[in-house]
Amino acid sequence: MDRLTGGDSSLLRRINSAVTLRALRDGHALTLTRLVGDTGLSRPTVEGVIEGLMESGLVVEVDQSQDSTRQRGRPARWFRFRAEAGHVMGVEIGVHSVRAVLADLTGRVTGSCSRPVDEALGADERLAAARALVAEQLRRAGVSRDSLWAVGIGTPGILDGEGTVRLGAAMPGWTGLELGARLRRSFRCPVLVENDANLAAIAEHWQGAAVGMGDVVFVLAGLSPGAGSLINGRLHRGFGGAAGEIGALHLLGREATPERLLSTTGRPLNPLDEAAVARVLRLAREGDAVARDAMDRFLQRLVHDVAALVLAIDPQIVVVGGWAAGLDGVLEPLREQLGRFCLRAPEVALSALGEEVIALGALRMALDQVEDQLFAVEQAAGPGRG
Amino acid sequence: MDRLTGGDSSLLRRINSAVTLRALRDGHALTLTRLVGDTGLSRPTVEGVIEGLMESGLVVEVDQSQDSTRQRGRPARWFRFRAEAGHVMGVEIGVHSVRAVLADLTGRVTGSCSRPVDEALGADERLAAARALVAEQLRRAGVSRDSLWAVGIGTPGILDGEGTVRLGAAMPGWTGLELGARLRRSFRCPVLVENDANLAAIAEHWQGAAVGMGDVVFVLAGLSPGAGSLINGRLHRGFGGAAGEIGALHLLGREATPERLLSTTGRPLNPLDEAAVARVLRLAREGDAVARDAMDRFLQRLVHDVAALVLAIDPQIVVVGGWAAGLDGVLEPLREQLGRFCLRAPEVALSALGEEVIALGALRMALDQVEDQLFAVEQAAGPGRG
Repeated sequence: MDRLTGGDSSLLRRINSAVTLRALRDGHALTLTRLVGDTGLSRPTVEGVIEGLMESGLVVEVDQSQDSTRQRGRPARWFRFRAEAGHVMGVEIGVHSVRAVLADLTGRVTGSCSRPVDEALGADERLAAARALVAEQLRRAGVSRDSLWAVGIGTPGILDGEGTVRLGAAMPGWTGLELGARLRRSFRCPVLVENDANLAAIAEHWQGAAVGMGDVVFVLAGLSPGAGSLINGRLHRGFGGAAGEIGALHLLGREATPERLLSTTGRPLNPLDEAAVARVLRLAREGDAVARDAMDRFLQRLVHDVAALVLAIDPQIVVVGGWAAGLDGVLEPLREQLGRFCLRAPEVALSALGEEVIALGALRMALDQVEDQLFAVEQAAGPGRG
Repeated sequence: MDRLTGGDSSLLRRINSAVTLRALRDGHALTLTRLVGDTGLSRPTVEGVIEGLMESGLVVEVDQSQDSTRQRGRPARWFRFRAEAGHVMGVEIGVHSVRAVLADLTGRVTGSCSRPVDEALGADERLAAARALVAEQLRRAGVSRDSLWAVGIGTPGILDGEGTVRLGAAMPGWTGLELGARLRRSFRCPVLVENDANLAAIAEHWQGAAVGMGDVVFVLAGLSPGAGSLINGRLHRGFGGAAGEIGALHLLGREATPERLLSTTGRPLNPLDEAAVARVLRLAREGDAVARDAMDRFLQRLVHDVAALVLAIDPQIVVVGGWAAGLDGVLEPLREQLGRFCLRAPEVALSALGEEVIALGALRMALDQVEDQLFAVEQAAGPGRG
């Protein structure tokens, strides 16, 4: 039985296409008979839909002559989703590096690369570095730019719905930058921009430490921590896109800044100088008393910021990533203190996705955009070509 | 045209009933012709539905013989929703008082009352006081207990989905109390239990300082503040019902407790002793230097806790209620400091609903339950009677 028995036949055709594609989305080949069963559509309808999808390059018939399930009679016809019909890309534009991850339309990663960039780089140069990396990744994968169906971008700062940076203190020239508009000129497909910690939360929920959990806080630990939250499985951006910016807590009152807490010299560290931070961490590991004190102060501060977030949101899990996740013993004090002070202590876990977490979240955001179009109301020519 | 042209006819009748009731829900009388227009149902369908609703007591025909719009021909028949066909009640069980608010099925408040209770009262006695108040309110309003369609209860503490108090340090014997189960024995209708600050957020969104705003934080300011949040217009309870319990922040690190901050004697105040708190506030207002210092310390603490919440959630508005809302100048320092330290400062407003805010939120929660049943799939006998 078809899903609708009346109405706009072209809408109906698009819906039937989407339903059929959805049955094929995981990439495995299915027979026509199986598709009829899975979709609830009639055999002639599925045949018509499949024909259209093959014409538009989204579905291909596969040779399953080895198939042993149909030894007699007419051989079954097998079809699969052409996940290689298009690509999605996730890009991180960070303080110290740019990174790109490329995937097919099922989200299977087919390549990734990254380049260090200078923390003092201006906005134009940083954008140029990101563009060059995207071009390099496409070239290495043998994928044409026109094959991209959506691009997700992750970056530090508070972003509005258009991808303009409302506040971005971490990088020179970032505040006020029309990041979305600037990057859209380089692509013919949709370009989505989101805060880095928000994307990290999405990535951990997709295939990291928070799979199957709807209420997730991701703490991007650094000198000044940021955070992203999922509530009921959906990103919580906040009314103005500023949710989770717990790093500002240390500005309140007369409490010392992280740069000061982690200093062993009495002079605050440069917040962007990761080498200086790494030096303190190494000294602390080696047992230097002054460095250990600095580390303790810094950890106490991080625990406080995360506890504030946990008390406000009450997540199921806190996932910790960012450079501070590499510190010896961030996790244990965090778990212990949250268990002591929070009225309901969440699970605490390290990021399972490492340095790619933000780019993977950006990839997932791009993939959501593609899936919304493919599987909701399918457009034969692919999204973003209208 | 009717909404469905096939399927279960009894389901269809219920849906058509709900659609018709929804058109009448604001309490104004409408003509049959207007109902046909508003619902999109056929005239015979509406006539049948109205007949059924009149039999079940939910709709009544009203005499509009003064109606000047139909001077010729057959006089129009007018109908209205019988909002008095049932009632909902909101109850606050607090540290220092119990309070009940009664309303008809449109949410129009028809009576309210409150009684002081001793802060040291045990759980059984406190429940008895709440039950007595409910009985008194029903008697005064001339409403039978069987006329209640849903009851909402608000109380301090972390509550699970069944209404059991997981943690309730504010009142003796509250932790572990099966509040929902205990109170359900006193009513034949659904009894819903929710945290007090959560309900206050709902109430301010319904008819207080946050009407029309979906992202709301309500701060129930007291010696130890609590908070409730709406995100996209929906209550955010958190994974374990503990979202917004920012009062625990002062336990972290070596920071002093509010009882200590607000003390003028060096000895901490009793957190439940509102008279002692009021004394300090009065002294501060009168210019006593020691009391003013205590107040400043306390306010600094409150600002910090609220800022932590705002940074985590990024709401459109922070509404402040509870006893501390009566302090001279809570609002101004809060607004100024949030504006200074939060990356995107929210609006800050005082509660518009005063002492009834929690009971009104409980009422709204009960009303939601009734409306879900009335206007989604209407049940002729009324909810909770099956």
